[in-house]
Amino acid sequence: MKKYQLMAPGPTPVPSQVLLAMAQPMIHHRTPAYEALFAEVRAGLERLFQTSQDVIPLACSGSGAMEAALVNTLSAGDVVAVVSAGKFGERWVEIARAYGVEVVELKAPYGESVPAERVAETLRSRKDLRAVLTQHSESSTGVLHDVRGYAAVTRATDALLIVDAVSSLGIADLRMDTWGVDVVVAGSQKGLMLPPGLAFCALGARAWERAKTSKLPKYYFNLLEERKFVGRNEAHFTPAVSIIIGLREVVKMLEAEGLPNVFARHDRLARATRAGAAALGLRVFPRATPSPALTAILAPDGMDSEKIVAAYSETHDITIAGGQGEMKGKVFRLGHMGYAVEMDVIVALATLEQILSDLGLPVTFGAGVGAAQKVFAGKS
Amino acid sequence: MKKYQLMAPGPTPVPSQVLLAMAQPMIHHRTPAYEALFAEVRAGLERLFQTSQDVIPLACSGSGAMEAALVNTLSAGDVVAVVSAGKFGERWVEIARAYGVEVVELKAPYGESVPAERVAETLRSRKDLRAVLTQHSESSTGVLHDVRGYAAVTRATDALLIVDAVSSLGIADLRMDTWGVDVVVAGSQKGLMLPPGLAFCALGARAWERAKTSKLPKYYFNLLEERKFVGRNEAHFTPAVSIIIGLREVVKMLEAEGLPNVFARHDRLARATRAGAAALGLRVFPRATPSPALTAILAPDGMDSEKIVAAYSETHDITIAGGQGEMKGKVFRLGHMGYAVEMDVIVALATLEQILSDLGLPVTFGAGVGAAQKVFAGKS
Repeated sequence: MKKYQLMAPGPTPVPSQVLLAMAQPMIHHRTPAYEALFAEVRAGLERLFQTSQDVIPLACSGSGAMEAALVNTLSAGDVVAVVSAGKFGERWVEIARAYGVEVVELKAPYGESVPAERVAETLRSRKDLRAVLTQHSESSTGVLHDVRGYAAVTRATDALLIVDAVSSLGIADLRMDTWGVDVVVAGSQKGLMLPPGLAFCALGARAWERAKTSKLPKYYFNLLEERKFVGRNEAHFTPAVSIIIGLREVVKMLEAEGLPNVFARHDRLARATRAGAAALGLRVFPRATPSPALTAILAPDGMDSEKIVAAYSETHDITIAGGQGEMKGKVFRLGHMGYAVEMDVIVALATLEQILSDLGLPVTFGAGVGAAQKVFAGKS
Repeated sequence: MKKYQLMAPGPTPVPSQVLLAMAQPMIHHRTPAYEALFAEVRAGLERLFQTSQDVIPLACSGSGAMEAALVNTLSAGDVVAVVSAGKFGERWVEIARAYGVEVVELKAPYGESVPAERVAETLRSRKDLRAVLTQHSESSTGVLHDVRGYAAVTRATDALLIVDAVSSLGIADLRMDTWGVDVVVAGSQKGLMLPPGLAFCALGARAWERAKTSKLPKYYFNLLEERKFVGRNEAHFTPAVSIIIGLREVVKMLEAEGLPNVFARHDRLARATRAGAAALGLRVFPRATPSPALTAILAPDGMDSEKIVAAYSETHDITIAGGQGEMKGKVFRLGHMGYAVEMDVIVALATLEQILSDLGLPVTFGAGVGAAQKVFAGKS
């Protein structure tokens, strides 16, 4: 017997009570029952996004919401700066170029980040920048970018700060209003512990103002139109009803735990994973601040990391993730976001110990697990 | 005690076995398990769409897939003809104009249709037409447009025929390849009996060829890109995994029944509903061919149809739909698509009899139900 476990950096496991809530008979979205449901979810979303502004849900994946953020705030020929240090940074570049938006790439090698000072310099030298686009957590490398720092340097300019928080919302603290982030994009299948298929755009006052002059074509992703419906607890297009129902349960769970505790839990799970990897003689990939959502770990010298990914699947029916793009074969990535607890980290590390041993490497059984336990006990 | 029933023209009820399949623990989409699941679903979709071409699933609602169909086959400045005789025809016009596509409106009053000959005339007089856009079933009026006739006149020209089959796929026969329809758009929450949040674009050979020269900007909805992933049983962006899992069950159910039987069932339910309404002295709204997906019925003279919609909800916890746009207050709409059987029509009509009586109208109890039963017995 094997117990299937999903330990990838998203989609993440969905709690049973959420799965069961979503398995209730389908309801119609143009009814008082849906409006009451959505009113509750909408208020919860504002608290999760730490904003007093409307959070707009969209039936799409996170990349759709990234596109929505861009096409609602920019026009063809606009110039933007993109923090590009991983696959999802590159996605911002691709989306911008698909719409005729000119990109100044602020590149850093995979595993590194771009300091806020470099963003500030770019803003000083390129007065025509209309936006800075970044990830908060770059899932492909496991790095957490300095969104707070970026906000401090963009908010004094006319450039908007547009943040892909798909793998950080409900995972790492992101104070949209307090820090002055203009647009936050998130998805359902990471910190929000839901199936994929629902995503979000939250726009601050400056971004809503900018949306009025954006000339890029859009229809399904027209956020000014959608906002009118959201204001009445409705939806322009048929919403992802079942995931919205699940979201009500998730909001309750996260608020029962308390957002600061949710962030602290993810930080603790991430520190424990890193400590465990180090105790097994492995190196964590990020040279910049690591994300609390996932840990990217370098395979032992000379070993293809895909071997480790395959072993997780074959020996214990655990899905983790390998490297993406240029990282393929070099790193493996353990997710510990959303519905993840201390014992999930223990399972991930104990399995890793067995895999390394099976692959012929010297392993002290319990060393990785023990290092994680020390973190949990507050002793490291 | 009241039993909640969803009898609106979509979203439709989701069968319990499908709800439970979707309530299984979340799986990752970049795994052999997902690829095997998708390979099965993909083959089933081709049979349901009656095409040998790739059917592209998109995580969005039906309107998103309508937009995808348009932005992948057209360029700004192109001229298209739109069959516009209801709210969803108007949606085609809105999407086209949002992207700078010029529209020749082939208008007909709500409740009517546009004959194929009128489409043919337009194609003869406007040699620059790049596409004809239409609904198959126009959900706002309950009319079924003559897609077969439109295909016969478009396939001999350079114009593509792009069909919104959101409320007809798996409901009314639509022979994409045989008839020569170039693009078919569908959604999960109608004939496919799934929650909303998954939609589809199927492109024929001419449409795929056209896609190569389309210049409208797109990223999330780039079908040529997505097709590369679909060809490997993968997805470019995180797919709506849980609905794809449900779709596997739905394909099994529809194929066990057999597509011709599925179409015959919807036809029978629609005829029975119309017979029941007539027996109660009510007039069915469409003056053109009625859709087998839903029946739009005119409220008795002088009565606001919203009263009937409210009574269904209040007396029996049944959700039906009122009129949309200019039909608001004039018609009420009973859905009988997807997971709908003869006894659902009986319940809808028996409830209608009680509502009309409660509203002070003379009603012979059982008259509407009896007329439907005659249809089921093959006696009318």
